[in-house]
Amino acid sequence: MRTGIATVCLSGTLKEKMQACAIAGFDGIEIFEQDLVTSPLAPEDVRKMAADLGLTLDLYQPFRDFDSVSEDLLAANLRRAEAKFRLMARLGMDTVLVCSNVATASIDSDDLRAEQLGCLAQMAGDHGVRVAYEALAWGKYVSDYEHAHRLVEAVDHPNLGTCLDSFHILSRAWDTAPIEAFSPEKIFFVQVADAPKLSMDVLSWSRHYRVFPGEGQFELAKFMGHVVRAGYSGPVSLEIFNDVFRQSDVERTAVDAMRSLIWLEEQSAKWLDANAPDPAGSTAAGGAGTGSGRTTAPGRRRYPMELATLPQVAEPAGWNFAEVRAADTAGLEKVLGQLGFESNGRHRTKDVQLWTMGHARVIINEAAPSAGSAAPVIAALGFDVDSPVIASARAQQLKAPAVPRKSQANEEVFQGFAAPDSTEIFLCQGSPDGTAAWTHEFGEGLEVRASGASAVIDHVNLAQPWQHFDEAVLFYTSALALEPQPFAEVPSPTGLVRSQVMLTKDRSVRLVLNLAPLIQQDVEGPRKTYQEHIAFAVDDLVATARACQSRGLEFLQIPANYYEDLDARFGLAPDFLATLQELNLLYDRDDDGEFLHFYTATVGSVFFEMVERRGGYDGYGAPNAPVRHAVQYDHMHRS
Amino acid sequence: MRTGIATVCLSGTLKEKMQACAIAGFDGIEIFEQDLVTSPLAPEDVRKMAADLGLTLDLYQPFRDFDSVSEDLLAANLRRAEAKFRLMARLGMDTVLVCSNVATASIDSDDLRAEQLGCLAQMAGDHGVRVAYEALAWGKYVSDYEHAHRLVEAVDHPNLGTCLDSFHILSRAWDTAPIEAFSPEKIFFVQVADAPKLSMDVLSWSRHYRVFPGEGQFELAKFMGHVVRAGYSGPVSLEIFNDVFRQSDVERTAVDAMRSLIWLEEQSAKWLDANAPDPAGSTAAGGAGTGSGRTTAPGRRRYPMELATLPQVAEPAGWNFAEVRAADTAGLEKVLGQLGFESNGRHRTKDVQLWTMGHARVIINEAAPSAGSAAPVIAALGFDVDSPVIASARAQQLKAPAVPRKSQANEEVFQGFAAPDSTEIFLCQGSPDGTAAWTHEFGEGLEVRASGASAVIDHVNLAQPWQHFDEAVLFYTSALALEPQPFAEVPSPTGLVRSQVMLTKDRSVRLVLNLAPLIQQDVEGPRKTYQEHIAFAVDDLVATARACQSRGLEFLQIPANYYEDLDARFGLAPDFLATLQELNLLYDRDDDGEFLHFYTATVGSVFFEMVERRGGYDGYGAPNAPVRHAVQYDHMHRS
Repeated sequence: MRTGIATVCLSGTLKEKMQACAIAGFDGIEIFEQDLVTSPLAPEDVRKMAADLGLTLDLYQPFRDFDSVSEDLLAANLRRAEAKFRLMARLGMDTVLVCSNVATASIDSDDLRAEQLGCLAQMAGDHGVRVAYEALAWGKYVSDYEHAHRLVEAVDHPNLGTCLDSFHILSRAWDTAPIEAFSPEKIFFVQVADAPKLSMDVLSWSRHYRVFPGEGQFELAKFMGHVVRAGYSGPVSLEIFNDVFRQSDVERTAVDAMRSLIWLEEQSAKWLDANAPDPAGSTAAGGAGTGSGRTTAPGRRRYPMELATLPQVAEPAGWNFAEVRAADTAGLEKVLGQLGFESNGRHRTKDVQLWTMGHARVIINEAAPSAGSAAPVIAALGFDVDSPVIASARAQQLKAPAVPRKSQANEEVFQGFAAPDSTEIFLCQGSPDGTAAWTHEFGEGLEVRASGASAVIDHVNLAQPWQHFDEAVLFYTSALALEPQPFAEVPSPTGLVRSQVMLTKDRSVRLVLNLAPLIQQDVEGPRKTYQEHIAFAVDDLVATARACQSRGLEFLQIPANYYEDLDARFGLAPDFLATLQELNLLYDRDDDGEFLHFYTATVGSVFFEMVERRGGYDGYGAPNAPVRHAVQYDHMHRS
Repeated sequence: MRTGIATVCLSGTLKEKMQACAIAGFDGIEIFEQDLVTSPLAPEDVRKMAADLGLTLDLYQPFRDFDSVSEDLLAANLRRAEAKFRLMARLGMDTVLVCSNVATASIDSDDLRAEQLGCLAQMAGDHGVRVAYEALAWGKYVSDYEHAHRLVEAVDHPNLGTCLDSFHILSRAWDTAPIEAFSPEKIFFVQVADAPKLSMDVLSWSRHYRVFPGEGQFELAKFMGHVVRAGYSGPVSLEIFNDVFRQSDVERTAVDAMRSLIWLEEQSAKWLDANAPDPAGSTAAGGAGTGSGRTTAPGRRRYPMELATLPQVAEPAGWNFAEVRAADTAGLEKVLGQLGFESNGRHRTKDVQLWTMGHARVIINEAAPSAGSAAPVIAALGFDVDSPVIASARAQQLKAPAVPRKSQANEEVFQGFAAPDSTEIFLCQGSPDGTAAWTHEFGEGLEVRASGASAVIDHVNLAQPWQHFDEAVLFYTSALALEPQPFAEVPSPTGLVRSQVMLTKDRSVRLVLNLAPLIQQDVEGPRKTYQEHIAFAVDDLVATARACQSRGLEFLQIPANYYEDLDARFGLAPDFLATLQELNLLYDRDDDGEFLHFYTATVGSVFFEMVERRGGYDGYGAPNAPVRHAVQYDHMHRS
């Protein structure tokens, strides 16, 4: 698949954008007119720079408001077009995007439109330019891609084809199956964009909220499947208008963008496999997938577009460990001990400690997390996977930056890479019994067996910088096979916290990404003021809490008003309610089950949670999150 | 008018919110349930604190999803309600907000609803509680305020009335005139919220985008006029769900909120005056205003709600001066000189210089704008007003923080206050001939007469911190009588810039508020990385540019690609195009006229613009703004 990206997706100057695209590995780019107009580079310089960087210049875009106009305006539009065609010759570009008219269209006649597009195609032919006509979702008369294609067919000129843009098609919920019937030589260009499903006017949605494939909710693999089956083999190019991407670091966003296309390529291949034509001759196009996505696909390679695949991984089998980093580890050691964790000593060659409770493992890394701060932060997460090497190969093909760990002979080498928020992610060889072989590198040199307590890591909650939230969702989706769930918004004293749960299907891994209020990020960065935590699941929370209490644990103090409200909402048995209040436990209930949990006080920017899931309760006590935020805020401002 | 505010509008803890409301001068508050539940304060403590702060506790809110339910659920809801009624007794509160059911409603019968609301009213009566029933805009069966009111009338119980919320009414575009026919004793509460007109689902719109009155586009004065005519005299209380307000400083947001109610009170009185009942007996309710808003209103004072008025001001007559502050003034002096400004010497007692060109006056204040920065910033703006004292009295009644300036005997005392972005605003005695008497305090002691050049300040462009953008719009609207225009969004290399023009009707004052991309605010605050400017209008821009060129002015260099595009768009005469390019002039044209302009290089965070308006051109060359941003960005990153 030839990969492309429109310069409008990225921040910076045209030169910076082109360099970032080359570094990220794109095959080509679309040049957004404004990026050229505002650039000090002459068209010839742009052409040379692209050639030097190994980038093709795939599409000049866009030419607006051409069709459906009066005679006078047509003449002016053709004059304007010819100037752009001459410019394109200097750039060495041969394809221009022409959008259906949204502003100056005044005559609703397909015959007239075909005639006017025919004039344009004729002139384009004289300049060696191909016109890719696209139906904008809010086009005045042409807003449906099939309509645009009918016009192209009516004109029947070799220099006129269509541009298919997934946003304009899927935002209007047009059926994508008819694409398959398009003649491939009439599809001049394909643009892909994802988006969250929002209920707002389509223009605002398009201009501000597009995201890279895999970061939204559109069925892009299916869209691409139909495009591939139509026989298209040209560039698949990103055109993402996103307020945040326009502000974020250009090289980093380009990598995020490239990752999304690599992932889309794989997902498209899987869709084609799962929807392969029946060997008997009838096709299953548009039918449901087979579920596994692993069906043999004798037919796929027949298509002109080559789709590369990635090393295949299953979702992680579980948490292997969580690592907290701190120059001053005393506070952490105290809390973990009070929670019931046992110290398993220090590593034989590294400055790290291992603490365990049941199958929950916490590593304390005795290194300052960053210059000038000794306070603990969550620094790394270890996941159990079938094959760390295959999973790491996949992650690296998805452009995850590798984080090698120094290790001595006879020590397990973790495959690691950095998540968008800079948390280090390690891929570990899982074991069916929940133990970890590497633990023998600690203390007395014996592998650590699970202690009496039956704890596991239930979930980890990480704060995400506002510029990298969407990137993080795609990162964990594509590299780690976690599935994003619908997001929640939780009020806190400093603003709403957007909370995005990422899950494995069997719930053995639950990762919560929190987008903290901007005001907490503005001041000192999210890691400093927004608290993150690790939650452990136990069988009997009341007993665990009593044991923790006896060991002197400082619980997060829950206000009495909360328990009154709990009683009003749930009508709990008085004894049970009294126990909850006595132990500072929080409670939630839904149709599936019950949830009990408590929080520790915060150490640095880290705190811990203990949870008990009763029945099929699958949430995180979201109704209680505002209480937690308020008490933590109050505590921080009092101390 | 009794003023109120819901605690959910503000950031912080319940205690912090209550204190901020008292400081801002509110009469009472609504307590949002979550603020109480998450608070360590016992209900009795809240009651005492409110009494100590002089705040009444006007409304406990909200009770959700009560009506239209099955028998079982009704019993549970009544049980839940009774717990809240008991809580309210401890708080000393007598009114609870009950919202129409959005979630658990399953039976669509007005008879059943009336029966269930009747049960609730009966129980409320037993506890001395009044139930204010409100139709949510997205209520499952009840979404229209008249429907809610019909239910209240059907129940006919002294403890059941309606709550009118402007958002739920105006977001659905319900007619507000029928409110007048409501019996005042059945209107238990009135909530006001403004909002920008957005095309999105009403729930998201309501939960994230509400703003304080005067910061959005709803016809709130008319809504309030009908409420007042109905005879309502209870609290008028703000209930604003806004993602930004939830994050911003609590005391500051409370003042912004209070300002909005003071302004709304005045606007409501004006609406009533303009729509006063005909003395002959027939009423003009709902009719158009008289235009001046100054009609004598013999009838207004008959209404139970007392509406206070503010000192009345006309819009400013023009710019008096702009002040730039810098510890190192050499760069500024050089640029102003090259632009054609004359130095009029230093002030006789202060460390400030006066520079003039025609009627454009720039003061250079030789003081560091802030610790650690010597670079120039725009520090103050002076406006010509009819009466500085009346205008200042109005601004201070609108809670604008006063900025007194030290002055010696025989020096003009400017009335000044601080705008939300901390720019100092001074109100000056205008003179019909555009001169300023205070200029004799400079140099030789003679009043400065306009020099040969016919320049005036055309507009000033200020960067606004993201937390205070809406506040700024209301500030200039209410205190300075500027009118907000529809906003524009301009792409820049670091993101979209939201540009909000504030105007006087005669265009003698044009102030542009720019919301810079967050990334520019994150790093060092908007004043440091986002550039602001002062634009001067002249009669002949080409001649002015040539003169500036001969004086060695460093123009902002416009790329050649821009002129090619200009030619493609407008087909300009070759000579004229060549002149534009030679002089680095920018050009725009619309149906009303033409616009020529150029920019200087940046000094500190300030640059200057020269403009020529031809015909009725009323804009700011918005199509050229991306070029300006890109060149400035490029320059900043090269230097």
